[in-house]
Amino acid sequence: MACPVAGALEAIGDRWALLILRDLWLWAPARFDDLRESSGIPNATLADRLRRLESEGLIEKRAYQDNPLRHDYRLTTKGRDLAPVIMALAQWGLKWEAGAGAPTVRLVDADTGRRVKLALVDAETGAPVALSRTRPRPGPAASAFLREKLKTREARDLT
Amino acid sequence: MACPVAGALEAIGDRWALLILRDLWLWAPARFDDLRESSGIPNATLADRLRRLESEGLIEKRAYQDNPLRHDYRLTTKGRDLAPVIMALAQWGLKWEAGAGAPTVRLVDADTGRRVKLALVDAETGAPVALSRTRPRPGPAASAFLREKLKTREARDLT
Repeated sequence: MACPVAGALEAIGDRWALLILRDLWLWAPARFDDLRESSGIPNATLADRLRRLESEGLIEKRAYQDNPLRHDYRLTTKGRDLAPVIMALAQWGLKWEAGAGAPTVRLVDADTGRRVKLALVDAETGAPVALSRTRPRPGPAASAFLREKLKTREARDLT
Repeated sequence: MACPVAGALEAIGDRWALLILRDLWLWAPARFDDLRESSGIPNATLADRLRRLESEGLIEKRAYQDNPLRHDYRLTTKGRDLAPVIMALAQWGLKWEAGAGAPTVRLVDADTGRRVKLALVDAETGAPVALSRTRPRPGPAASAFLREKLKTREARDLT
């Protein structure tokens, strides 16, 4: 599929994979046993997802011990770039999921110590833009189907 | 789990569900057949995910025809708030997935017509912050395990 959302989901895999990426983002390098404790993912599933994430180039493993051989895991640059996906999920979960409530993690700027958040901004000026003010327009790779749907929507938005 | 990322993933469900949310965000109200065509999700799976998303309060259905009864689907406010998750996936897919390439959709500000993007910003000042400058700190709901891991990481960041 040409859709970048579908492409991203294909590369990431499933929910378990996202929990692994969350932990590696927060406190990598991480060992297998710590990932299992943090995520609650069963052994075989965790081993499988780690292999999958490595083959997708999202994480890398390094030996931290020789005899017996033991590895730990960390994000690649490609994997670290998924941080906004994890932040967006966290911001939504904090707002909407009962039981989530107080944050488990606060992201801060290492230089200023102030909190950092994900926001919608004007790509040129950086000024904040409310979600309700955003509209989708077809990009160069839009299918005929999508173009038609967006056109219908635009006409409706204008009435 | 108290983690808001895990809570969000639990509410959303799986990849299919995210593709449905993507389409409803872009061009709802959407009918079953159009969702199937756009997402490529098989009939039974699509029906199941629509029921699931409705029971989670992320989408709502309305009758658009009486005889025979037919429904279409749109996002609730709770579902629309997931737009940043979809945008974050799209931005990553465009950057990292070969074959994704050109965007299928461009998000613009309805008032100015200029492009809108997702960015990391200082929560107080709105100034952009590079991902590499961000650091996780334990929030009030952090587990003892997470606190220990973040402390180890902080000590490492300082050396």
